[in-house]
Amino acid sequence: MEIKGDLVPAIVQDARTGEVLMLAYMNREALAKTLETGKAHYWSRSRGKLWLKGESSGHFQRVVEARIDCDLDAILLKVDQLGGACHTGYRSCFYRDLEGKIVGERVFDPEEVYR
Amino acid sequence: MEIKGDLVPAIVQDARTGEVLMLAYMNREALAKTLETGKAHYWSRSRGKLWLKGESSGHFQRVVEARIDCDLDAILLKVDQLGGACHTGYRSCFYRDLEGKIVGERVFDPEEVYR
Repeated sequence: MEIKGDLVPAIVQDARTGEVLMLAYMNREALAKTLETGKAHYWSRSRGKLWLKGESSGHFQRVVEARIDCDLDAILLKVDQLGGACHTGYRSCFYRDLEGKIVGERVFDPEEVYR
Repeated sequence: MEIKGDLVPAIVQDARTGEVLMLAYMNREALAKTLETGKAHYWSRSRGKLWLKGESSGHFQRVVEARIDCDLDAILLKVDQLGGACHTGYRSCFYRDLEGKIVGERVFDPEEVYR
């Protein structure tokens, strides 16, 4: 199935635990690369380029399952996440509640991983 | 904590099962209304107005937990979903894989619910 529009949000969920790990964006190229390689690729809006998740950190996401929503404008990826999804060192990017309280698990030290 | 930008995607997850139900968009007003009432409100991009999820269908979402991501530009809501999240009658909007095969559960008949 084809995504609607140039860029759609992709929800990334841990295939084993169901934890929501992150939200990123995909264009057709990112989606095609993801399906072709089995590793999650996104479109980086800040850097304006295709991005293989884990290319700097080694924290790749192996895609177990991919779904599309009713309106064809959002993707759900269920993945095996190596290390942590978040560049801050947390397993999930959603590691805080709305008061800023930390509720997530820190699994790596970004200073060690991004050199 | 404050969201960054005017409109951010909100991932909606079943608080009990972990199933990802839908993706919608929130502005500050939708987020404030959600926290104030405990019922999920979104900003409808197509209708250009605030939207109480369930206002037509009765399929409200009671918010159990809310989180914000590392970049403050995405929200995760864990909810108790009454009925189904998807206007097509499925429990989740992500009821199809990328080949279009139905993998989700249909829980209501939209012709009965939206009159």
